[in-house]
This record gives sequence, C-alpha cells and structure tokens, in this order.
Amino acid sequence: MAWPRFDVVSDDTPAAGGGLLTRRAFLKGAAALGAGAAISAEAADAHLTGALPSQKAPGRAFSGYGQPSSFEKDVQRAILEPYGAAAPGNGQSFTPLHLLRGIITPSGLHFERHHHGVADIDPKQHRLFVHGLVKHPLKFTVDRLLRYPMVTRTLFLECARNSSRNALPEPAQATCGELHGLVSCSEWTGVPLGTLLEEAGIDAKAKWVVAQGADAASLTRSIPIDPAMDDAIVALWQNGERLRPEQGYPMRLVLPGLESCIGVKWLHRVKVTDAPAYSREEVAEGADLLPEGKSQLFHFAMGVKSVITQPSPGWSLQGRGFYEIAGLAWSGSDRIAKVEISADGGKTWAPAELQEPVLSKSFTRFRLAWNWNGTPAVLMSRATDQRGQTQPARSAWLQQYGAGQRRHYNAVQAWQVESDGTLRNVHL
Amino acid sequence: MAWPRFDVVSDDTPAAGGGLLTRRAFLKGAAALGAGAAISAEAADAHLTGALPSQKAPGRAFSGYGQPSSFEKDVQRAILEPYGAAAPGNGQSFTPLHLLRGIITPSGLHFERHHHGVADIDPKQHRLFVHGLVKHPLKFTVDRLLRYPMVTRTLFLECARNSSRNALPEPAQATCGELHGLVSCSEWTGVPLGTLLEEAGIDAKAKWVVAQGADAASLTRSIPIDPAMDDAIVALWQNGERLRPEQGYPMRLVLPGLESCIGVKWLHRVKVTDAPAYSREEVAEGADLLPEGKSQLFHFAMGVKSVITQPSPGWSLQGRGFYEIAGLAWSGSDRIAKVEISADGGKTWAPAELQEPVLSKSFTRFRLAWNWNGTPAVLMSRATDQRGQTQPARSAWLQQYGAGQRRHYNAVQAWQVESDGTLRNVHL
Repeated sequence: MAWPRFDVVSDDTPAAGGGLLTRRAFLKGAAALGAGAAISAEAADAHLTGALPSQKAPGRAFSGYGQPSSFEKDVQRAILEPYGAAAPGNGQSFTPLHLLRGIITPSGLHFERHHHGVADIDPKQHRLFVHGLVKHPLKFTVDRLLRYPMVTRTLFLECARNSSRNALPEPAQATCGELHGLVSCSEWTGVPLGTLLEEAGIDAKAKWVVAQGADAASLTRSIPIDPAMDDAIVALWQNGERLRPEQGYPMRLVLPGLESCIGVKWLHRVKVTDAPAYSREEVAEGADLLPEGKSQLFHFAMGVKSVITQPSPGWSLQGRGFYEIAGLAWSGSDRIAKVEISADGGKTWAPAELQEPVLSKSFTRFRLAWNWNGTPAVLMSRATDQRGQTQPARSAWLQQYGAGQRRHYNAVQAWQVESDGTLRNVHL
Repeated sequence: MAWPRFDVVSDDTPAAGGGLLTRRAFLKGAAALGAGAAISAEAADAHLTGALPSQKAPGRAFSGYGQPSSFEKDVQRAILEPYGAAAPGNGQSFTPLHLLRGIITPSGLHFERHHHGVADIDPKQHRLFVHGLVKHPLKFTVDRLLRYPMVTRTLFLECARNSSRNALPEPAQATCGELHGLVSCSEWTGVPLGTLLEEAGIDAKAKWVVAQGADAASLTRSIPIDPAMDDAIVALWQNGERLRPEQGYPMRLVLPGLESCIGVKWLHRVKVTDAPAYSREEVAEGADLLPEGKSQLFHFAMGVKSVITQPSPGWSLQGRGFYEIAGLAWSGSDRIAKVEISADGGKTWAPAELQEPVLSKSFTRFRLAWNWNGTPAVLMSRATDQRGQTQPARSAWLQQYGAGQRRHYNAVQAWQVESDGTLRNVHL
C-alpha cells in the first residue's frame, strides 16, 4: 500500500532530529501542501454534471441496516486459531489498526478472544444472577436490566497478551494490526455493576466477585471487589446499538483500564466471594512471570502504550518528502498527557498533536508531520499518561519480567523505514 | 414494548411537579433499587457451570467482519419512499432513536436521504475537483486525499426536514425514530475542506462553493465560503472505518452544525463561485416559508433541540412507580448547556443529568428519575445551548414561519402518558 508524500508544507521548522516537524507544518496557511494535482480550469470545468457512470443510472435501494462498501471487503480482522480443529473457536481475531482512523473501532472489527466459540444467546432466555456473600441473592432478566439507570463511557479494551510477539527475541514481521490489534475502543453503555451489588447487599467479608460466562467455555474470572463496585459496567450497548454476539450479547462486563480478559462476555453470574476462584484461565494463562522464577497472579491494570498506525509495515513511503505520522495511545490508569515521536531511533523526540477530546482510559489519536530525507530511519512513539507513567524501552520491559513473559507488553514500538520506503518491525 | 419500573429508589426528593426526582434518585446508595427479583441462595447456586444450552456445545466460528445478533433483527431503519416507482431511490430512512443508547449512531443505522438511490463508486476511479474562482484548479484521487492531515470530530447530522410531521395540525402517531430519526451522530474523520481550498488559492471574489455529488441526482448544493473554509470536512471515515456507501463513499462533505442536506455525498466537485447555484434542491426544497408570504433561502444553521427517546410511543409503562427518563439533545451552534424535563405538561421543570463528555455540535445524552403516580401525565424536554438559545414551544415555532413551513422544526416535543401506561404524540 503506497503512502504518498506531500511536496510542500506550511512550515518546515524542525521539531527534533530525523526530519520531525512541528504541529504547524500541516496547519492551513499561505503555503500550499502540494498534494493535489494541478489541472487546467478547462479540464476541471469539462468534468460536467451527469458525465460519470454513477450519474447516469439510479443507485441502489434503501436498506434497513447498512453494510460497508464492497470495495472495502479486504478490511477484515486477521484470525488466529492456534489449536485448529483440536480446539474449535479457541483463538483470537485482530483489529486492523493500520487501516482505521479516529478513536472508535467499528463494532464489526472489534478484536475478539474466544475460548470455545461465539455463544448465540436468546435474550428472553438469559438470566443474570448476583449471589454469594450477599444479603439478597438476585436474578435479572435482560428486560429488567435494560431499564436500570445507565452510564456511557468511551473505553478501550485490551487483551493482556496483546503485542506479545514483540517479547520474542526476533521481531515478527506483520502488520500493525496483526501485532497490536488485540485492542479496540468503543462507546459502551450499561448498568454499573456496583448498583446491582448494592441492591443485593454485599457482606462485609466480600473481597472478590467471580464472573462467569454462558459460553461453551463457561469462562470464569475473579475480579477484586473495589473495581467491581467502583466502575465496572454490565454493558448492554456498544457504539449505540445492542452488543454484538462476539462481544457477549446480551451482556458483558467492561472494567475500565483493566485487562479485557476479566470483562466476562455472555455474563450470566456474578458471585461475591472472599477469595478468587483460581480458575484455569487465571492460573494457567493469567500469571505474570517475574525474575528469579516467581510469578504474579491477578495483575490486571493495563499500562500506558502507543503505536504508530500510519505508516507501519505494509504501507510504503513514496520517496523523500513530507508525510503525516498518525497513531493511537492509551493508558489503563488515566488520560494520555503526551505522546512523543522519534524519527532517529530514540535519540531525539518531538511532541505529537493529540486529537480532542482526550478521554480517560480511551484511545487518543495523535499525529505529527515528518520530512523524510530518503535514508533509513526508525520511527517510534512514546506515550505518557496524566499520572506520569511512560512506556518503557523494550529492554527495560524485558528486565521487569522473567523469561517467557508474554502478558502486559507495553514497550515502545520501533518501525524501521528502509531506503526503498518499506517498513518493518525492529527491536531497539 | 414494556418499560418496567423500579420499586424503590435511593432518594425520592421531588425536583419538580408530576413526580420528577433529583439526579440522586438513582445514584448508588444504601437504598435498593428493587428491580432485581429476589431468589434464594440455593436457587442461585443451583444454576451451575455448564448447565445452560450455550455452555454444552462450542459456539460459532470467528468472522472477519461481525454483524448484530439475529435477535436484534427488528432494529432497522424505517424507510419512506413517498414517490414509489415514479422516483426510485428518492426518499428517507429514519434512525430508530427509541431503540438506541449512548451518543454514537451505529453506521448501519444512520439516517439517509437520497434523491436517486445509493451510488456504488469504485474509489480508484473517483476524482475530486476543486476549481472555479481559484488560482490553481486541482484534482485529487482518493489515495492522495487519504494521506492529507486529518481531523476527527463527533458531530450530529440532521436533515432540515427532520420532525416536520410535528408542524402538521394533527399530531402524527409514530415512534420517536419515525418522527425525529432524520438525525444521527458519528465520529467523522477527514481532511479540512479549507486545506484544499487554500492549496487551490481562492480568489478575492469567492463568496460560495458549489458542491456536487457523483450520484444519479448529481445533487448540487451551495455553501457560503466561511463555513467551507472554517470547519467543513471532506469526510473519508465514519466511526473508525471508511464511509458506508449510503454516506457517500468514498467521500462526503460534513458541515458541523449546518443542515445535513448541504453535506454533499459522493462528493466529486467543489466549485468556488461568487454566487449560489440556485439548484433545484435548494430553491424548490430548501426555502424557509416566512409570515406574510415571504420565503428565505440559504438558512442552514440547525437550532437547539432535544427529544425523550425512552419512554416514547411504542414503549408502555408498567404501572405507577419509578422510571428513568432518557433522551438526546443537540445544537448546531455550540455545546448543550442544560436540558430541563417536565412531567406536568410544562408547568414545572427539573434539570436532567448530562452524560459527559458534552461536545459541541454533537448529541448529548440526558436522563432523569421520575416517580409516576399512574395518572395521565405529559413528558417534555427542553434543551438550552451555551449561547443561551432554547427550544421554542410549538406555538412559538409556528409563529416564526408561514403556513406550510416544514424545515427546521425544533419545538419542544410532548409525549402524553395515558393511565394504561401507553404513550402518544400530542401538540401542546
């Protein structure tokens, strides 16, 4: 995929080494950007009303529910089912981050992690139980839950194993979406779980809730009582409409800023307990491997992170000249405070422009202008959140953990730009 | 559709007449909401892992691009084609506002207004011309435009004829979506039109731009030069992905806060001129009818407006008790400053809670708790924006215009609640 350059920018004042420019470079101004092809006034006027094929015959009819253009049919999630027929429906699909813009992920392209396929649940038959260490065990139909006071938040969800191929010694060669696309961002609407827990009346001994899905894996995950009470959402709506089946229709948990794995889909019970469940998924898959052979369970908070989505591997630059760098940043703790970009492999950094609104625990879109001189370069982005947390270098991230750690990878991503304009993943 | 009540709220302090409560009513607190059905601890625990049909067999496979649940197949746009076979593809489809939550409208449910069907355009063949009173006429391929510096904004689009049935003497009986669903809200990403106009170099005589679509209607609309330069967007992305065909794929104009009709879809040329085009659509359809037989052309700004989406006609209340009222507010000029709700036909009003973030020229979601005493009531919402503009009463709106005016209807909507819990549209 070609990534064309501009011939001229408004202001080519350097912001850092390697050709990074200030945010003024692409602002409107007297200087032309020079990407449009000049034509004669006669040629432009000759393009007359009704001359195009699409203007000569009526278009397609109205539809009740629309679909993307057939020309966008290749914008799909990459699917990874590592166990094949031995474990059908156990795998992941990746959001094509390098093909998207803005901060909302289309619901049809949200990443997925299923353990035993996508449950297809009749909402009329579905029940949610809130029980365990509570004064009044409760049962909710979907209809009853739908009428509860709702909250709406734009939140990212990220699998704890996102970007884990970058923890391997050799840099995997894949698109940005295939490497980092186990993260997506949606507008979620639902009932605060705390409302339901308060209605049930939690016991003083309550320290955890154990959530379970109605899928074939009966996925079971333990969640500390504080986030469960404070800001967990029993989500019923995604991007304005009811949840997609792949997101747990008719309801799932969403835990702002925590790993998506504990946001149990097809949620059918929340049991209040004094200890975690130590389920297979949280013990076998959910442990962080630490130095000296130790491991840590129940580390849920997602770190601060960013990635340059355009350009990235699969795109190719069209020779020396001006380009816009764009990407996404997010933090499980707070708002993004700044994103810095380097075009010289981390020697110098320039601040990117952040697109408003910058929301807590949501994607933030960033961008910066760049004047590429046509020689090899290394592009990197480094996000910092409002709590002062910054992305580590890859080497520093590796040192925090033991060998084989694949969870919570949030180190700075480096894209090598070759002289021919192609990009590839490199470890710096 | 049943709209169940709560049995108990946290705080039943009145906020206005007719049973409106304060925003504290549904906050978490000591008092239970009482919508969940109490069950015994044994019954809750008996609901064991693996007992549900969906837990007994693997679910469906992964997909490249997901779709809504089959159980949501009735969530569709209502289609109105008033001329039938005489003018195929000339009509409207309405967003089902009463079935949605949050502020993002799913792209598949965005309202539509087509004049001659949905053009199906190959982006490789598409060109955008910027010409007329410019120094350098320019031609853009989609690929070139895709690489321009982009902006992202969450903006509502509203047809100037939205809600026009409420201008008729008799109140139309229809759902909220059928009455008011020619408005939707999306995250739009694209290139500022001003960037392209500056690159072309506009002449000092430029006062308008004339935009034309590549559809079978060759839809042609005139836009004043100021909004065209200041904040118009050549939108290429909607809600994260490329535009849907119905929204003008591969590109459309989006004019923040102005009537959607001038945001030409399948945009293929922008001609800079010193006068409007006086096209059929803007002269025959686009005139506001004023008192004393006068009419006004080129009135584009959309007023401040709101509507209660839940409950609304089609929903029915389940007897006296506590309910949450929810709705949408928007203004073409600025952010929403407040939304007031009345449950007594406008005699008293209470402020609704506004869901953050409250963005300029975007939908804002509001809600308030209500204690219905089971007797007939009239629910109304009234929005005010940051410039102090407030929705008029219907009678005041009618007085501003001449007989037959159908555009820019933004009066307060009243829903009559009957003793049996059904709702209907009334004129107050």
